[in-house]
Amino acid sequence: MQGLYYNGKVALLRNDLPKPEPDAHESLVRISLAAICNTDREIMKGYKPDFSGVLGHEFVGVVEKSGNPALVGQRVVGELNEGCGECIYCKTGRERHCEERKCIGITGKDGCFAPYMTIASRLLHVVPDNVTDEQAVFAEPLAAALEIPDLIHIRPSEEICVIGDGRLAFLIAQVLALSGAEVTVLGKHEDKLRRFGSFAKTVTACDRRFDVVIDAAGSPSGIDAAMRLVRSRGTIVLKSTYAGNTEINLSALVVNEVTLVGSRCGPFAPAVRLLSRGLLELPAIELHRIEDWKEAFGSRAFKVGFDFGSC
Amino acid sequence: MQGLYYNGKVALLRNDLPKPEPDAHESLVRISLAAICNTDREIMKGYKPDFSGVLGHEFVGVVEKSGNPALVGQRVVGELNEGCGECIYCKTGRERHCEERKCIGITGKDGCFAPYMTIASRLLHVVPDNVTDEQAVFAEPLAAALEIPDLIHIRPSEEICVIGDGRLAFLIAQVLALSGAEVTVLGKHEDKLRRFGSFAKTVTACDRRFDVVIDAAGSPSGIDAAMRLVRSRGTIVLKSTYAGNTEINLSALVVNEVTLVGSRCGPFAPAVRLLSRGLLELPAIELHRIEDWKEAFGSRAFKVGFDFGSC
Repeated sequence: MQGLYYNGKVALLRNDLPKPEPDAHESLVRISLAAICNTDREIMKGYKPDFSGVLGHEFVGVVEKSGNPALVGQRVVGELNEGCGECIYCKTGRERHCEERKCIGITGKDGCFAPYMTIASRLLHVVPDNVTDEQAVFAEPLAAALEIPDLIHIRPSEEICVIGDGRLAFLIAQVLALSGAEVTVLGKHEDKLRRFGSFAKTVTACDRRFDVVIDAAGSPSGIDAAMRLVRSRGTIVLKSTYAGNTEINLSALVVNEVTLVGSRCGPFAPAVRLLSRGLLELPAIELHRIEDWKEAFGSRAFKVGFDFGSC
Repeated sequence: MQGLYYNGKVALLRNDLPKPEPDAHESLVRISLAAICNTDREIMKGYKPDFSGVLGHEFVGVVEKSGNPALVGQRVVGELNEGCGECIYCKTGRERHCEERKCIGITGKDGCFAPYMTIASRLLHVVPDNVTDEQAVFAEPLAAALEIPDLIHIRPSEEICVIGDGRLAFLIAQVLALSGAEVTVLGKHEDKLRRFGSFAKTVTACDRRFDVVIDAAGSPSGIDAAMRLVRSRGTIVLKSTYAGNTEINLSALVVNEVTLVGSRCGPFAPAVRLLSRGLLELPAIELHRIEDWKEAFGSRAFKVGFDFGSC
């Protein structure tokens, strides 16, 4: 079968991949839609040099085979991280942090930029009938947004700033605004910021400060802005992952008693609940054929993906 | 002027009340709508024997006079609690807990069951144009609901139970469901529970347990149910206030390492933001004339209030 493959150095479209076979604990998913995440771009730039395999981790598909018969024929989305099941992380509710974890399309496991993928059945979540494929493919980034209120206590009475005007920032700002908190989004692109207008204040420059600052800039510039924008005794949440190290003024954290919190993947169940409630604005996805992957990755559209239903 | 007055023993409709005059730091509000809260009923039963004055604390009105000229002519809702401004609570962001606080319609200050009321201007919040009077009058109970996520960290991945199927439970369940958390409502009345169906699971009996249990039953029965329903190391939030003491098994709290958190009034700004977003289902209010206050208090309608616009 076809698949967008990363060989540890570059991405290439392969036509010689075997159709995967699920283990007893896995399901075989026929991918309907898969979407591009900034992490995919960072992997191509060298963020995960040890990985080789099919890229992609945001998908919706239909289960064709499964060790769990109840899943066969179900439309599903799926979590990325499969822990070993034996370690202290797996045994204490922190499977996403298992040191031996596989992560689809990122570490030790083929991803979803191919017509078929296998995944541990327990990582799958059935998509309610009232959620379309084009909405369901947002479950993974929406779960990542929900990881912020899962990790830290965000109060409705607090003032929050989200740095970034991309896809993840768009979901983060909405999730936090649903709490009732006042959300300000600091971005660089007037056109992108207009999408945030119904649930957040938007600015391209800002000289005030906030209780909580979320860095979703997707680049090292975010932390500098966050350090300027956070109040003393406030919290900075880091959502961006990118290749390379970043220089920061740790003494300013000490002096201002600022808490820095890293945040990655999040809980799928509340993401699927929120999608089913229809409370979120979701951008349209610009869909491409996998053969046109270079064009897809070069697109400036708000959300870009691959349509495998047409394969 | 008229007003529903509590004399420390009973409520009575008086026609001889003077129209109040605002102090320099206050505003004079012409009440448009005022709504009945369970606390009003409890005051009539003896919950606040030291109080005498006009009852009522849920209102929307228009500012007629104010020390703050920007407020004159504005449609407003208002917070209940006016602190002394000098004590440790007032100086550390906890004005609602000032030991010398006045509380409109409850402690040391006339309330809103009258055509006019005075209130400290800084407690007022301007109502956005897209929020009707009938919606705005929910700002106070909605703020009380928002006090729960303001006080404690509720995670979107947690399982939550709300005990109660009344007005406050209805708002609490909605606020918590907006976080993405799975909310189950335990109530006694099938007809009332049907209103919760679009955002929560509803049950009239329950033998499973939850991470967080909210007691909004409005009576001493709520804490018994909460103790049965909360998981070890879980949290019970108490929202009900009523006259008299309650007997509870404190040892069960110790053994199961359960946290018990009291929660009262909450932040108005996020309440007004959520009302303006239109994300909440709000029940219709059954409006009465103040002369018919006995009938109003006897009504079984979901939300009952007084229409002063018709006075």
